[in-house]
Amino acid sequence: MAHKNRIGNLFSLTSFGESHGPAIGGVIDGMPAGVTIDMEQLQHEMARRRPGQGGVTSARNEPDEVEFLSGVMDGVTLGTPIGFIIRNRDQRSEDYDHLKDVYRPSHADYTCQAKYGIRDHRGGGRASARETAARVVAGALAKQALTQLGVTITASQVSQVSQVSHVSQENSSSKLEGGGGSMTHPSQYHTNDTLSQGDTYGGVVACVIKGVPAGIGEPAFGKLSAQLAEAMMSIPAAKGFEIGLGFDFVNHPGSEVLDKWVINDGKISTMTNFSGGIQGGISNGNDITFNVAFKPVATLMQPVEGIDNQGNAVTIEPRGRHDACVVPRAIPVVEAMAAIVILDNMLINRASRL
Amino acid sequence: MAHKNRIGNLFSLTSFGESHGPAIGGVIDGMPAGVTIDMEQLQHEMARRRPGQGGVTSARNEPDEVEFLSGVMDGVTLGTPIGFIIRNRDQRSEDYDHLKDVYRPSHADYTCQAKYGIRDHRGGGRASARETAARVVAGALAKQALTQLGVTITASQVSQVSQVSHVSQENSSSKLEGGGGSMTHPSQYHTNDTLSQGDTYGGVVACVIKGVPAGIGEPAFGKLSAQLAEAMMSIPAAKGFEIGLGFDFVNHPGSEVLDKWVINDGKISTMTNFSGGIQGGISNGNDITFNVAFKPVATLMQPVEGIDNQGNAVTIEPRGRHDACVVPRAIPVVEAMAAIVILDNMLINRASRL
Amino acid sequence: MAHKNRIGNLFSLTSFGESHGPAIGGVIDGMPAGVTIDMEQLQHEMARRRPGQGGVTSARNEPDEVEFLSGVMDGVTLGTPIGFIIRNRDQRSEDYDHLKDVYRPSHADYTCQAKYGIRDHRGGGRASARETAARVVAGALAKQALTQLGVTITASQVSQVSQVSHVSQENSSSKLEGGGGSMTHPSQYHTNDTLSQGDTYGGVVACVIKGVPAGIGEPAFGKLSAQLAEAMMSIPAAKGFEIGLGFDFVNHPGSEVLDKWVINDGKISTMTNFSGGIQGGISNGNDITFNVAFKPVATLMQPVEGIDNQGNAVTIEPRGRHDACVVPRAIPVVEAMAAIVILDNMLINRASRL
Amino acid sequence: MAHKNRIGNLFSLTSFGESHGPAIGGVIDGMPAGVTIDMEQLQHEMARRRPGQGGVTSARNEPDEVEFLSGVMDGVTLGTPIGFIIRNRDQRSEDYDHLKDVYRPSHADYTCQAKYGIRDHRGGGRASARETAARVVAGALAKQALTQLGVTITASQVSQVSQVSHVSQENSSSKLEGGGGSMTHPSQYHTNDTLSQGDTYGGVVACVIKGVPAGIGEPAFGKLSAQLAEAMMSIPAAKGFEIGLGFDFVNHPGSEVLDKWVINDGKISTMTNFSGGIQGGISNGNDITFNVAFKPVATLMQPVEGIDNQGNAVTIEPRGRHDACVVPRAIPVVEAMAAIVILDNMLINRASRL
Repeated sequence: MAHKNRIGNLFSLTSFGESHGPAIGGVIDGMPAGVTIDMEQLQHEMARRRPGQGGVTSARNEPDEVEFLSGVMDGVTLGTPIGFIIRNRDQRSEDYDHLKDVYRPSHADYTCQAKYGIRDHRGGGRASARETAARVVAGALAKQALTQLGVTITASQVSQVSQVSHVSQENSSSKLEGGGGSMTHPSQYHTNDTLSQGDTYGGVVACVIKGVPAGIGEPAFGKLSAQLAEAMMSIPAAKGFEIGLGFDFVNHPGSEVLDKWVINDGKISTMTNFSGGIQGGISNGNDITFNVAFKPVATLMQPVEGIDNQGNAVTIEPRGRHDACVVPRAIPVVEAMAAIVILDNMLINRASRL
Repeated sequence: MAHKNRIGNLFSLTSFGESHGPAIGGVIDGMPAGVTIDMEQLQHEMARRRPGQGGVTSARNEPDEVEFLSGVMDGVTLGTPIGFIIRNRDQRSEDYDHLKDVYRPSHADYTCQAKYGIRDHRGGGRASARETAARVVAGALAKQALTQLGVTITASQVSQVSQVSHVSQENSSSKLEGGGGSMTHPSQYHTNDTLSQGDTYGGVVACVIKGVPAGIGEPAFGKLSAQLAEAMMSIPAAKGFEIGLGFDFVNHPGSEVLDKWVINDGKISTMTNFSGGIQGGISNGNDITFNVAFKPVATLMQPVEGIDNQGNAVTIEPRGRHDACVVPRAIPVVEAMAAIVILDNMLINRASRL
Repeated sequence: MAHKNRIGNLFSLTSFGESHGPAIGGVIDGMPAGVTIDMEQLQHEMARRRPGQGGVTSARNEPDEVEFLSGVMDGVTLGTPIGFIIRNRDQRSEDYDHLKDVYRPSHADYTCQAKYGIRDHRGGGRASARETAARVVAGALAKQALTQLGVTITASQVSQVSQVSHVSQENSSSKLEGGGGSMTHPSQYHTNDTLSQGDTYGGVVACVIKGVPAGIGEPAFGKLSAQLAEAMMSIPAAKGFEIGLGFDFVNHPGSEVLDKWVINDGKISTMTNFSGGIQGGISNGNDITFNVAFKPVATLMQPVEGIDNQGNAVTIEPRGRHDACVVPRAIPVVEAMAAIVILDNMLINRASRL
Repeated sequence: MAHKNRIGNLFSLTSFGESHGPAIGGVIDGMPAGVTIDMEQLQHEMARRRPGQGGVTSARNEPDEVEFLSGVMDGVTLGTPIGFIIRNRDQRSEDYDHLKDVYRPSHADYTCQAKYGIRDHRGGGRASARETAARVVAGALAKQALTQLGVTITASQVSQVSQVSHVSQENSSSKLEGGGGSMTHPSQYHTNDTLSQGDTYGGVVACVIKGVPAGIGEPAFGKLSAQLAEAMMSIPAAKGFEIGLGFDFVNHPGSEVLDKWVINDGKISTMTNFSGGIQGGISNGNDITFNVAFKPVATLMQPVEGIDNQGNAVTIEPRGRHDACVVPRAIPVVEAMAAIVILDNMLINRASRL
């Protein structure tokens, strides 16, 4: 349900902003009226997304103060569109002067130029991860509405990717026996010491959504899993998405991975949750569980080889401030995008019956 | 860009149809005018999707004849919406009478009931894979337009998933050295002999799109990778999506997986293609490469345990006709969905500059 | 909320079909589940739209049988998309052979050719009023849902246009004194005798929607009045739309046309209804009243001058079968479009508050 | 093509803002890249919309300074979304304290309350005409792109409504003879002297769009005339829309109002332009001409009777600053909305053929 710079339908975010322009921001359209916004909680979400999470130092120091311009009065939503901006203050645009005519490897420099014939070369322009701040604002509001609807969303970094999300044949049995629905994420990811100085690394974020009632999502193109995939893969540096057992489904025969029904307190549920809470594109009432893979950020703090718009090789010396790993900062963005998709679909579902 | 039963924006498909209703079909809106439709090629695509592909016997014998009702005159597209239907003939609806009040495990029976309070219980109803026939029709038309634009789309089944799409630390070096852009898929998938009688299995489909010019896609929510993810995850039984190196990105430091620039015949390109042809959500001119994971189909040819709408356990004896592996039939559907997304975005991109 | 061949958002119709192709039809997406369809009522609506209404003979004799292909089981809606077709049977396509390369005056022949570079010249192709049959199908279903929600929609032809919809200074006082909210439509339109043989005439359709609760519609672009205007002006031959007093508002000072509040049975209402039931784009609980002006159909039963695609003047002799006045047949189409807009907005409004 | 607070598809505006909140603004998505923005021209458009046009004094003195936050670099569009805000400075919110629990007649006070259960009562909140400033910003940008495409848009106030837009039988012949395509608007509207002190009046705005090539628009729901109708009727106080001869079509037999073809300089055109430049929903290359009727603004500078939320009658004394006639200020808004619709459709049309 995304189109150009908008995502969502009944609840939608249209975002704008280049990394080094005057501001980023967006319009949240369809926020239900009458929700009291917890601004402290909102700023907490913003802080989680800011550079310098996870022990990795980053020099950019943006306060990320959100200014609401409409749609909220005395802290309560009006039902009208919520315009908001976040000023870009500490931009150091001059750090990017040497990149004006240069395409860095694995960045969007060349592709943006190819698309538009023009680009803001400073800090990635529109393709910068700074744009995700707008997503966190919309997600924070969606989360607060979802809390009132009994839904909670928690993402975390997966420590040992191959053992958790891509269960090998050896340890799958224990997982299959365990059942119970949600993946476990035993520990934080600490691999910086294995990296050479100035290098970067990626990672996997696992997300669990609790409390979504059965019946949310659509059976064909608008599958809830498809919408979540789109939302997650729209996050900068996201390169993979899987729901429930995901790619590991290919290692098991069907007879091993059926989610058998069980009655708990008179309520239908499943004993296991290989499906990740979604069957036929529609939620079944269990936890919705999915993983998102992020590549290492392409900006190293080492010299890298680029090319200029005349085709000449260029060595790019590291400048500016950049995270060695994007994943800790991606966690609140994953939660935000999940919140946007879930709230939108729960609102849409109010029309599924007369 | 999906909403309910529609996918796409300037080029879109709105599909309809239950597995055992009178017909399935759809409306293709935005097909450019003046394209001569190769009907033989279309029926070839339909035949690829039909049950019984890949040596797995399936009893249902649907001719899958597509009847075009509008938008095409003397074999040439008019630019107006193309309505089409495919009759459901060999339905054997009585095979499903015993499932009227039963929820099969890992099917959409319960979730559809929870959503709508009513469902067509025969053959999965709207959630049936039969619905994908409509996608193949739209995809076939999109492909024919894309051929004229120089784009080709080829999907195939990945033999040894862990070695190809999820490169292990041991063999990654050879892949990384190899570079060159596209994944290789050495052989067909032959694992039926390892399965017990009546069981099912999943698999991974790899897809390569060649000829997409640089500049297609959007930098934020409408990333081409995000749209492809949504489209692929909307296919029944799809549980994972990854682009380029995908989940394997987490096993490599950034310095190993940057796609370095190179000039070939005066044209900018990359030496490797870890990005899968998309950077910052926008195509870079290289092959677009992605994988889709499918779970084993939930209909076994063995007795399975279901539950009825009163909460009683029910043993479901196998009836009807079902594929042991959905993957061979999914291949043309993956291609079709890719074609819909790529054509839509190439048309949209005509407006990126004045 | 229209885009190309689709109208509506949560409840939408995507239509297809050329006048002389195999069939017309559409997909109704978002019809709430659990509504029992009264097929007799549906066929009654279809009959109202057929040629030959209002005493004007028309030779084309289409049974307009609607075949539902999905989304309805045992007469009850499933919540899934409703595909339907109406075969074109009595087409007499040969009547149009002489028009293959000719552009008739005030038809869409030339504009379609200019847009697509190709067109179906038979009977107006996609621009034919026959396409409205699909609208009536969707409208009939919407009406049946609306009936359960307490909403009724009634359109009728206005006899003396200038006296009713465009109140002149002389007789405005009586109307203003009358108040009460709805326009009156004293008699049927009988003017054929004033026309020369083979000529055509237009007219105005007035529509009253009763029972819409206060709060439906959006305050800015999505005003209910704007959506109704779009829906009505999308009907073939529609050339004007006005709500409440409409164009006559310009003949009165503000002090004369304020709708004063009144309390009836403890419920807030207005004494007059100059606003036509919508204030600031949102329904106020009163009758929604609007007028739609239709031009005379451009197909005369007289010789007319056209031009061929080489620029030569061509005299077109009348053939085929055509109504002298489109207005009687437009009445059920106006009702259908109104029903689509109102149901869509009532469903959307379920999300206005948490 | 409007949905909630967004209008347009490939070129769209999502607006936000309450009259007395911190700011109004919007996001313009899909502005083609590479267009140099004439900021002086933009501010000129803004000035045309400000209160106090047309000799009617209005006390509110807003500078209406537009701040662009993204999508423009060194005065050139980047192709990325253009976020912009206009601060609300001179608000005098205390002027509205007495209206907190009061519903004014013919305003959106009650309908907004009914919809959301909460509202910003100050100055009309979201339903205020101040929101149109955001439309003028988007329209100004669209106009500048359209100028490069050879399209100009000019709106003006119609002096004697009944003689121009609703041609009476007496003077229609001269108009019909005149032909030539565009309506004439002889003089400015001067009727204040006929009004009692503190009263308000409405009027009609006529708009002419020149230079749109043949082939723009869609033949069914997305008729260009329907989209223009929606866009115009979404302007505050708009109550009627007509294209070409509009409502006056009902006063003429078809034989009088066919637009006959003519060849000028080898180019096909029509001798008259009763159709208003659109046939079958698609532009024919002639001037596009339409009228929009505006009601008198509901805020009088006289005491009026309202009702409070307890059902008590309340006399509302005039305060604040208000225009006696909205029409002069509506002119640039009509042009802006026309520009948005035309640019959007011209961009969309690039995909009509392969």
